[in-house]
Formats: sequence, structure tokens, C-alpha cells
Amino acid sequence: MGRVEETIKELGLELPEAPKPMGSYLPWAKSGKLVFISGQLPRKEGKIVYQGRVPTEISLELGKQAAAICALNAVSVLKDAAGELDKVKQIVRLTCWVASSPFFFDQPQIANGASDLLVKIFGEAGKHSRMTTGVIGLPGNATVAVDLVVALR
Amino acid sequence: MGRVEETIKELGLELPEAPKPMGSYLPWAKSGKLVFISGQLPRKEGKIVYQGRVPTEISLELGKQAAAICALNAVSVLKDAAGELDKVKQIVRLTCWVASSPFFFDQPQIANGASDLLVKIFGEAGKHSRMTTGVIGLPGNATVAVDLVVALR
Amino acid sequence: MGRVEETIKELGLELPEAPKPMGSYLPWAKSGKLVFISGQLPRKEGKIVYQGRVPTEISLELGKQAAAICALNAVSVLKDAAGELDKVKQIVRLTCWVASSPFFFDQPQIANGASDLLVKIFGEAGKHSRMTTGVIGLPGNATVAVDLVVALR
Repeated sequence: MGRVEETIKELGLELPEAPKPMGSYLPWAKSGKLVFISGQLPRKEGKIVYQGRVPTEISLELGKQAAAICALNAVSVLKDAAGELDKVKQIVRLTCWVASSPFFFDQPQIANGASDLLVKIFGEAGKHSRMTTGVIGLPGNATVAVDLVVALR
Repeated sequence: MGRVEETIKELGLELPEAPKPMGSYLPWAKSGKLVFISGQLPRKEGKIVYQGRVPTEISLELGKQAAAICALNAVSVLKDAAGELDKVKQIVRLTCWVASSPFFFDQPQIANGASDLLVKIFGEAGKHSRMTTGVIGLPGNATVAVDLVVALR
Repeated sequence: MGRVEETIKELGLELPEAPKPMGSYLPWAKSGKLVFISGQLPRKEGKIVYQGRVPTEISLELGKQAAAICALNAVSVLKDAAGELDKVKQIVRLTCWVASSPFFFDQPQIANGASDLLVKIFGEAGKHSRMTTGVIGLPGNATVAVDLVVALR
């Protein structure tokens, strides 16, 4: 077991099986050292477990948890892409999409649920640039989606 | 005529002229082997032919067709960028933006209209990672927009 | 002072201090020659100075100004990332996110506020591919956000 996977275990987390795509696409694609991870939803065993818009249909706190699950799913996909998580050199971009009620503007707090987890798991290599937006709705009424661009060693 | 263009012909499709940008930007930009294709709308001969939000203003089926037109326009731009479509090594990222009514959550079905066409045209090289989102509105009231990141040989 | 910074001065503009991130992320991250600049908001001295949706809560003209401020902030971050703005080879991707009322579809005009400024500042190197979308809301109720992917020499 690699160093990053040991960290995941120490955090009390378990890497899920990489989620299957929800359409005609791949979980990831690579060009040179760059891996593009498809948009990940807060799914557990294939089922979306956090649905609805923040904060009228689901709370900010649950939205943050949802973002962390998206990030963990992204790490699973990344393991498949890289072969071994210790090969991750840097997460270069995280985009966080938050299903938002019309007067919700605290999307960065939700996104922190994903960002903080990646830093816990990868340390310096997990620090990333980020774009966060509110959106009117996401596939399957998911509360959050997260996609990544990652540089491998 | 290259292999990919022959496939396009065999599919009964015709590659349109690459759409002109709708603002102060380029249809594509390159860095090394990576080409970034600007957001493509469902335009034919310059005119947006699918407008409105799915499913209240336009049907899911028409939305899917709109996504395919976006993808075909993207392929035209890609031809200009690559010189020759056979130089496409891999479509690494497709982002699909769907103008959505508040309770529409089937955006992946719309996005499949674009994804499936790219796989028909490019085969293995057309398989890609993907992010799909609903949005409140797109330029010109377009139903869908598609942008790409593509690796060239 | 480099050539690009002289141009900025000649345009009567002043490069602000690079804005601090609004969450657990970095202002930029690099992979090889590619720099990913985090989403920039229309902030001055840390405060978001253009808020609300176009055109019901803020005018199209102010939205365009807001986009230009986002772009200028992105240039500040880019200076930190590149060390020196003359090292910018090409801005390869600009994504413009416009907080939009349900019947606003002129997002490209807003985005031009950002695009035009980058071309004034960098000349040919400032020309870029672009994706523009309307969104229901942005962090801090900002009117616009802009993020970039930039190739360095």
C-alpha cells in the first residue's frame, strides 16, 4: 500500500470503487502527464446520496459533506488513472459546481469540503487552483459536482 | 480526404464551415499538443437553431440533437486547429452545458448527443472524460453549449 | 519593468495586488508550461465591488466593467505565477461565468469586457479560446467570474 493510501486509511476513510460514468463517457482521460477526471457526484454505491439545492432543499453543512464525497470519488477514479496514488504530482484544477437556490452565495464553503479533503489526503500535492460556481441544477438532482485536472509524475 | 473525414461522410454528415466566434475570442487556442476548442452552440450557418430550456421550452430529444450539432461544430473548429482530423490523438475533455428548467436533472442524456457523435466520428480517439451541468441560460438563448480539450498527435 | 507591464501603465491601469483566495485553494497551480488561474471575482482591495445578476440587478455595461476587473485580477495572479508577465506565451482558455437573470442571453458582451482587456494588455499572446455561460449565482453574489488557462514560454 502506498503512502497516500496509508494516509486515507489513517483518516478513517475508505476508498470506494471508482463510480461508473452516468453516460457515454470515460471516468478519466489523459494527455501526457495531465489527467482529466470526469465530473463526480456525491454517489455511494452508484446512488446519489445528497440531492437538492443549497440551502433551501439541503443545508450548507450537508452540502459540504456532499462535496467531500465527490472529492473522494474523484480520488478513486484518479487511482485507476494513475495506477498508484503516489504518482500524483499536483492537483492543478478543481472545479466545484453547487446546485444553488437563487439567493445562495456561499458556494466556496461547500467547495472547501472537497478542497480540504484533497489536502488532507495528498498534502502539498493536493493543493490546487479552483473555480466555484452556483448552478441551477446538476445531473440526478445532485447537490454538488466536482471535476479535476491532475498532473502525474 | 483523411480517414476521419471519410467516416463523417459515411455517417451521412457534412462538416459545416467552422462557426465564427460570437465575441472577442478565437475559435481555438493551442499549447503544445493540447487544443482548447471554444464553446460551441447549436448553430447552423451562423444562426442558433435550438433555443430555450429543457424540457419546458424544448424537448429532451431536441436538446440531444442540439448537443450533436454543437459537437459537429466543434469538430469543424478542430479541423482548422489540427489541419487534418486524423491528427486527433484523443478528445480528453468535453464539457456540456445544458440550459435547464429548475426541475430538469437529465442533463447527461442531452450530453450523450454530443458524446455519442464524437465516438462515431473518431472511434477510440473520440472517447473522453466529461463534465455536464445545467445552467440558467446560455448565449443567444441556446439550449446547449459544448467545449472541448483535445490532444493532437 | 517588462514590456507587458509598460503596456498596462500606458493603458492607465494599475496592477492590483493579487487577490487572496476565498477558500481552501491556491490562486494558481502549474503543470509544465500550463498555469491554471483560479476563478477571479470583481474584487477591489478584497471587496466584491459588482454584485447581482445582469440585467435586473446590475446593468450590462456595469457587468462588462466587472468582467474587466476580474481579468485584471487574473493578470495580477498570473504575474505571481509567471514571475514576469513577459513570460506569457498564450492565454489559451478564458471561461466567463455571468450571474444572469432568467431571460438574459447576452453573456458574450459581458465576457468581451475581460477578453478585450487581455488583448490590449498582451497583444497577440492575449488572444484566447473562450467559454461563456450564464449561472444562477456566484460566490459573494459577484456579477461575473473569470478563470484562465495560460501557457508560459
